[in-house]
Amino acid sequence: MTHAHIPHTHIHRGELKYEGKAKRVYASSNPAEYIVEYKDEATAFNAQKRGEWAGKGATNNAITAHLYPKLEAAGIPTHFIEKLSDTEQRVKAVTIIPVEVIVRNVAAGSFAKKLGLEEGTALSRPVVEYCYKSDALGDPLVNTDTAIALDWATETELTRVRELALNVRDFLTPFFLERGVKLIDFKLEFGKLPDGTVILADEISPDTCRFWDAETGEKMDKDRFRRDLGGVEDAYAEMLRRVTAPVDG
Amino acid sequence: MTHAHIPHTHIHRGELKYEGKAKRVYASSNPAEYIVEYKDEATAFNAQKRGEWAGKGATNNAITAHLYPKLEAAGIPTHFIEKLSDTEQRVKAVTIIPVEVIVRNVAAGSFAKKLGLEEGTALSRPVVEYCYKSDALGDPLVNTDTAIALDWATETELTRVRELALNVRDFLTPFFLERGVKLIDFKLEFGKLPDGTVILADEISPDTCRFWDAETGEKMDKDRFRRDLGGVEDAYAEMLRRVTAPVDG
Repeated sequence: MTHAHIPHTHIHRGELKYEGKAKRVYASSNPAEYIVEYKDEATAFNAQKRGEWAGKGATNNAITAHLYPKLEAAGIPTHFIEKLSDTEQRVKAVTIIPVEVIVRNVAAGSFAKKLGLEEGTALSRPVVEYCYKSDALGDPLVNTDTAIALDWATETELTRVRELALNVRDFLTPFFLERGVKLIDFKLEFGKLPDGTVILADEISPDTCRFWDAETGEKMDKDRFRRDLGGVEDAYAEMLRRVTAPVDG
Repeated sequence: MTHAHIPHTHIHRGELKYEGKAKRVYASSNPAEYIVEYKDEATAFNAQKRGEWAGKGATNNAITAHLYPKLEAAGIPTHFIEKLSDTEQRVKAVTIIPVEVIVRNVAAGSFAKKLGLEEGTALSRPVVEYCYKSDALGDPLVNTDTAIALDWATETELTRVRELALNVRDFLTPFFLERGVKLIDFKLEFGKLPDGTVILADEISPDTCRFWDAETGEKMDKDRFRRDLGGVEDAYAEMLRRVTAPVDG
């Protein structure tokens, strides 16, 4: 692990490689690594709704930086190397597979609406969905046949993506429940290393997961922003507290 | 085959079991059989656009009645028993699996539009998609996880559905090409017999397929109605002629 020998101060941001709705990705002085910066901006409904609050980037960075080493320890390869600052992470440079992977434990959001289901309807098994990562097209739902037919990924890669996505679910669902949070659904992204290895990339945060308080059912995620429920900052801060606090018992 | 011993005149329509946009399904004097009536009505865009022309039902009935025995002969079990009249068929009574199965050889229609592809873009392999059969919800795209999680079908049934759908494609694609027609995409429905056997049901016609003339690219299907291209009746009649005419060579 050469990483341990490079002090943080020797990592420099290079060119901006990609700017998304909630993060910027920079090249770094090491061509095998990127620096990810978490922004305070929030968007919803394909960026038709916009907002921002101080500390959002730092909170999501902290939650992700806490969870990713635990996922690595559970056998899930990820891009995460270390947290660099309140809003920055060092990560392995990957080519992102242009498919957002949504894992659902419970029907909620647009999924519940389009199927005429009440939010909170149990699913008899987890549902893994794929959306083509395209802001211009509104991230349309596709399936693995389509992703393969249009050469976004190979069948082998998508088989691995599904396996890893379900492994992430199997780790995170009880992890959150022990902290009084029901993991309703979440979005993942995966990338490929130069040797083709598929690894987990992106973040895991209240921006990308639906979290419902296990006792009260209260929403503790970006739906508070999407739906103007108020208390957005408090909900994010509470999620960080629950994720990082020691669990009794 | 007891069917051969029952003259047509002994089959009577019973109660209306189901009325769809283009067909009515009746019970019959034999509880193991239904009578399907093909209507002249046409709808598009989830019934927001409506039309009708004399002979549409008869044309679709004739095309379906010509193709289904060929599919049976190719090893694909179907609900078809026999054509009863210009607009009626005897079929085996099934419980319809509430998932429309779309098989795509080439990107067209809403699929092309949502992915920002030009109509006619080749797919490097066939794409099989599933839509939840619900007029009220607009037949939303789902995947097999969702169909299984919401108990619309079992994993075993959907594996069989996919296998049969691809077998239908492998039969129909060269069948139409020999008749100067490119099979762009098509929609199938499947049903279950009382013993659980999954069989092909519904129709195969210009209502449910995209057919493009192999020489000129001219559309010979319901897109002429959807897009007000004119010549709808002629296109349907020409498809019937090509399907039933002997092939040279």
